[in-house]
Amino acid sequence: MHVHVNAAASLDGKLSSRRREQVKISGDDDFDRVDEIRAAADAVAVGVGTVLADDPHLALDDPDLVAAREDRGDPPHPARVVADSRARTPTDARILDDAATAYVLVSEAAPDARREALESAGAELVVAGAERVSLPDAFDALESRGVERLMVEGGGELIFSLFEAGLVDELTLYVGSMVIGGRDAPTLADGEGFVADFPRLSLRGVERVDDGVLLTYDC
Amino acid sequence: MHVHVNAAASLDGKLSSRRREQVKISGDDDFDRVDEIRAAADAVAVGVGTVLADDPHLALDDPDLVAAREDRGDPPHPARVVADSRARTPTDARILDDAATAYVLVSEAAPDARREALESAGAELVVAGAERVSLPDAFDALESRGVERLMVEGGGELIFSLFEAGLVDELTLYVGSMVIGGRDAPTLADGEGFVADFPRLSLRGVERVDDGVLLTYDC
Ligand SMILES: NC(=O)c1ccc[n+]([C@@H]2O[C@H](COP(=O)([O-])OP(=O)(O)OC[C@H]3O[C@@H](n4cnc5c(N)ncnc54)[C@H](OP(=O)(O)O)[C@@H]3O)[C@@H](O)[C@H]2O)c1
Ligand SMILES: NC(=O)c1ccc[n+]([C@@H]2O[C@H](COP(=O)([O-])OP(=O)(O)OC[C@H]3O[C@@H](n4cnc5c(N)ncnc54)[C@H](OP(=O)(O)O)[C@@H]3O)[C@@H](O)[C@H]2O)c1
Repeated sequence: MHVHVNAAASLDGKLSSRRREQVKISGDDDFDRVDEIRAAADAVAVGVGTVLADDPHLALDDPDLVAAREDRGDPPHPARVVADSRARTPTDARILDDAATAYVLVSEAAPDARREALESAGAELVVAGAERVSLPDAFDALESRGVERLMVEGGGELIFSLFEAGLVDELTLYVGSMVIGGRDAPTLADGEGFVADFPRLSLRGVERVDDGVLLTYDC
Repeated sequence: MHVHVNAAASLDGKLSSRRREQVKISGDDDFDRVDEIRAAADAVAVGVGTVLADDPHLALDDPDLVAAREDRGDPPHPARVVADSRARTPTDARILDDAATAYVLVSEAAPDARREALESAGAELVVAGAERVSLPDAFDALESRGVERLMVEGGGELIFSLFEAGLVDELTLYVGSMVIGGRDAPTLADGEGFVADFPRLSLRGVERVDDGVLLTYDC
């Protein structure tokens, strides 16, 4: 499976403010670019932190991109994926609507009642890992369901785990020309953090987009 | 006074790992560039967090840059400045050696015994602010001592306060092609963080340096 992480951060590496409210970091050109990456993906993933903070829809905005997918025999929108060990995704989350398949990756520790609630709300559950979602196992399960190209849109906890597991193939990072600041604000890669053997990426592209810069890395 | 902030961060905005140990983020070309910015400055500032973590010397490495300063009648190295409200800088800190003037910015809350210890160790004290160093006042005092061009090398607590006080004129940020990660690792701009009215900068330059990218902003 090809895993493409895409995110927008302030120049100090923040995905949002310490209040975890969405901040407009990029502009229209970057939104269009993100929509195109989504359109090329079989599924788009986020962590449950992002679902709880932003309630994103993760569907395509541009009707032309939807039409192009349908022309090539794909579903109109990529599937949505949430990494959610304890099945905390609210049953009225926008990613569970019927615009596209919604996979919720849960661990064995997810309470039965929550699993059933999510299934009734239309989610397809993937169980992987004892306490926390095992991303390698869950991604294998997604692959066996036909997900060959996975886009990951955040947040920083999920992205760190993906780097830790060596699962990232490609990273596109929009660096907005703004400072968010805050020692408690979410960053592009949170988690425990590395203290040695830092993953080193290869900088493929550098391009000005909107009033910031788009950095493209191969991993 | 012209304030130029320079730092090297990982692509996720971290200045070092959660252990606050120095991480080699950039390479030789970037080190040379930093030395040149230092050489053009009247003084180089850090927060006491950086002194305690890294014990930097903040003097010039390149003898040609030293000679050029002496040719134009400047002291061989720029002055060193520490923002250190309670005068916690160790008396054997490298920045207090006699390579150049060392200003320690303290607040009125700094204990007398610590102030005297630092003065005996060769520091020139600047008192500004009641509990915490007032950066605008301290910078005025530095300006009256002839500091027209101040370079700031970090860390993230000091840099955030400078943005908060609107004191930054220019930012050069080397973004290394590595992930450090860690929700507790220091970032380019820590502090409380902004929740609205985020400072917006103007991206002047984008240049590949070593295996990363150098971003230059005007504020
Ligand atoms: N600027 C952008 O591009 C962008 C994009 C996305 C999000 N954001 C912002 O990011 C913030 C949310 O980020 P976040 O870091 O708090 O949350 P996140 O990464 O979206 O979700 C983290 C949660 O995912 C769950 N998870 C399940 N398995 C995991 C695993 N193996 N590794 C890591 N996490 C796993 C964990 O909860 P369980 O333990 O309960 O499973 C974890 O707390 C919001 O403020 C949002 O606005 C910004
Ligand atoms: N990669 C790089 O380019 C780079 C550069 C520098 C540092 N670093 C790393 O950054 C880390 C240290 O950063 P840090 O953020 O902990 O420390 P810092 O910014 O160097 O120092 C912060 C301290 O400065 C003092 N200070 C005095 N007046 C202040 C004011 N008005 N606003 C803010 N701080 C004020 C405060 O202590 P008091 O309250 O006691 O005064 C504060 O805790 C280290 O891990 C170091 O390796 C990396």
